[in-house]
Amino acid sequence: MTFDLSTLVQPASTKIVMVILDGLGGFARPNWGSELEEAHTPNLDRLAAEGCSGLHEPVGPGITPGSGPSHLALFGYDPVEFQLGRGLLSATGLGVDLKPGDVAIRGNLATLDREGRVTDRRAGRLPDEEASEVVDLLSRKVSIPGVELLLVHEAQHRVMLVFRGADLSPHLSDTDPQAVGVPPSFPMAHTRYAERTAEVVVEFDRQVRALLADHPRANVVLLRGFDSHRELPSMHERYGVSAAALAIYPMYQGLGRLVGMQVLGGAHTLGEQVGVLQDRWNDFDFFFFHHKPADSAGEDGDFAAKVAAIQALDEVVPDIVALQPDVLLVTGDHATPSQLAAHSWHPVPVLLWGPKVGRDDVVRFGERWCAKGSLGRRPAKELMPIVLASAGRLAKYGA
Amino acid sequence: MTFDLSTLVQPASTKIVMVILDGLGGFARPNWGSELEEAHTPNLDRLAAEGCSGLHEPVGPGITPGSGPSHLALFGYDPVEFQLGRGLLSATGLGVDLKPGDVAIRGNLATLDREGRVTDRRAGRLPDEEASEVVDLLSRKVSIPGVELLLVHEAQHRVMLVFRGADLSPHLSDTDPQAVGVPPSFPMAHTRYAERTAEVVVEFDRQVRALLADHPRANVVLLRGFDSHRELPSMHERYGVSAAALAIYPMYQGLGRLVGMQVLGGAHTLGEQVGVLQDRWNDFDFFFFHHKPADSAGEDGDFAAKVAAIQALDEVVPDIVALQPDVLLVTGDHATPSQLAAHSWHPVPVLLWGPKVGRDDVVRFGERWCAKGSLGRRPAKELMPIVLASAGRLAKYGA
Repeated sequence: MTFDLSTLVQPASTKIVMVILDGLGGFARPNWGSELEEAHTPNLDRLAAEGCSGLHEPVGPGITPGSGPSHLALFGYDPVEFQLGRGLLSATGLGVDLKPGDVAIRGNLATLDREGRVTDRRAGRLPDEEASEVVDLLSRKVSIPGVELLLVHEAQHRVMLVFRGADLSPHLSDTDPQAVGVPPSFPMAHTRYAERTAEVVVEFDRQVRALLADHPRANVVLLRGFDSHRELPSMHERYGVSAAALAIYPMYQGLGRLVGMQVLGGAHTLGEQVGVLQDRWNDFDFFFFHHKPADSAGEDGDFAAKVAAIQALDEVVPDIVALQPDVLLVTGDHATPSQLAAHSWHPVPVLLWGPKVGRDDVVRFGERWCAKGSLGRRPAKELMPIVLASAGRLAKYGA
Repeated sequence: MTFDLSTLVQPASTKIVMVILDGLGGFARPNWGSELEEAHTPNLDRLAAEGCSGLHEPVGPGITPGSGPSHLALFGYDPVEFQLGRGLLSATGLGVDLKPGDVAIRGNLATLDREGRVTDRRAGRLPDEEASEVVDLLSRKVSIPGVELLLVHEAQHRVMLVFRGADLSPHLSDTDPQAVGVPPSFPMAHTRYAERTAEVVVEFDRQVRALLADHPRANVVLLRGFDSHRELPSMHERYGVSAAALAIYPMYQGLGRLVGMQVLGGAHTLGEQVGVLQDRWNDFDFFFFHHKPADSAGEDGDFAAKVAAIQALDEVVPDIVALQPDVLLVTGDHATPSQLAAHSWHPVPVLLWGPKVGRDDVVRFGERWCAKGSLGRRPAKELMPIVLASAGRLAKYGA
């Protein structure tokens, strides 16, 4: 049976910082360590020596997670129970406020040949300015009776679409065929109630193709990840904490917003993130501090850049420690080994530090050392209860 | 919530080898290691040094498993969800192809005294030849209207029985009282539908006792483990792999067959097993390589023989590695410590090796070293998802 943590939550005035180095995890080769093992991280090593270490699996053994489920798990939300579609994540990341009944969709500007077959699913990754003009045109001209259309440009070929109106449903199959040389797929309604939405999609597609017929590369929008508004219980509801998100990228701001965090904007560099943390230290109980570059470097297969991204974070650790958090957790949301240039299933190092955390024998922060730590190897969702307890925010269970 | 792995399975052309040293696990004494710790295993140690290690618990903490559940767990099947009765396992091991509606039963040739009380549950472990004659006699003479009877001799006192016919049910209690000095138990129907089968069992027992009245020690057949045909989803269905079983003993061939493996026969020695593996390397994605002698030696309480059995397997490791599997897993199905001369609940060493597996600090294969490995200590059923991920056979979860 699963335990309802909320029955134990008690108030406290303690401060928690959760530092997430995106894509932190990696794996060692026979004669060489992982990125984190090879990085020079004197400050993180000191925290590891003074605190407790371990490994987490974001979703489960062997599961390679996307950013959505892995962050939710670190925030203490079961990532299998709380599933988020790509459309919802995009809307969240773009700050589009979905309402009940809305259908959110991920879109790609793409190229069709004369026979209507996809030749490029990303329209040559067209420049933002050009894509933005296409999105503007479609926003002004596409008109479907009874449906309000929100079309937002993300970056390059990526767009985000919301259908708003009565009787819409997200239970449709994608029109993006995820392949070239074939035409876009027909949107199939998975339920009778979704049939009207399928018609809306067909009409949207008809108008888009007519409007973009002469565009050299962006002459269709491929749709995937139909999703609806979904309300997650907030961290305040679940844990009694007022939480803030210090993330530069919209996607991670959005993930924080999904669980009720207040997004603290204004930072565009790691140094500025620390500045905002210092400025707003008194205003919140829980700070989600997100550091993206480790993941980006891993995705690029750039071992040295990932090492550098980790070292950059290490350098700001003393500033965070100087704020005297009651609990400081440092981990990644998932592994992005540069050998794979992609997210992976490998376990992710964790360190937990604070006056009530305790200490084990681990004196360096890295996969092979964390494997021997007292936190053990556990699902990511189990970390939040330990963080809350270490912050004095969970009462005794039973007499 | 539990995760449905099959939604993530993706095709790949990678090769997986799962080497199972039956009964591998043991436990150390104050001044002496376990069998594996004391064995000289330079090849397994090298794999441990290059890969990741850990411990698995086959079914759960403190649970001593039989071969059925422990193998199923290693194949990724929840051993509590997929329960196999002794009758089904015996039939499987003997290559008896059960059909829907069949009832399979384990039987012991046993000895009753004049008052009908069991004096020896194994009829003095009578020789195979003598037992085989008894089984032949019963096969020819026992006749029950509407029921086809299959009676197969296994070894010594052990027989296997199948009732085939309309309206039969396995929901009966055993007639084997599991004790001496008492008469065989009456078969109780657990459901109304099983009442006819209970009558069949009573009639079978009546005829058997009449036919064997003059036999000096085998004058009854005690029945236990009534079970029916059950179809397990195949490994191909669940994981998209074509799987082969390289096992010498019928029981383990049968376990492979239960999950849809093709049994590759022809090998009677470890060396021949390696030969078949080499010959059929291109024909399958997944190879289950079973090595029995470690368990047999453990069951005999023979520490030195178990060490030797482990060392024999170590010697063929280079031949397996030379095939360049993408993932090589070496473990046991359960512990069989020679101090106990029986299966036990102790955790079992695991090592995982391959280019995407990574590496931890463990440099020797053995219980005490594996306890510090990055695979951690986990249920056996969690290993298969990691094996599949390491072979590139699982897609990303969530965006």
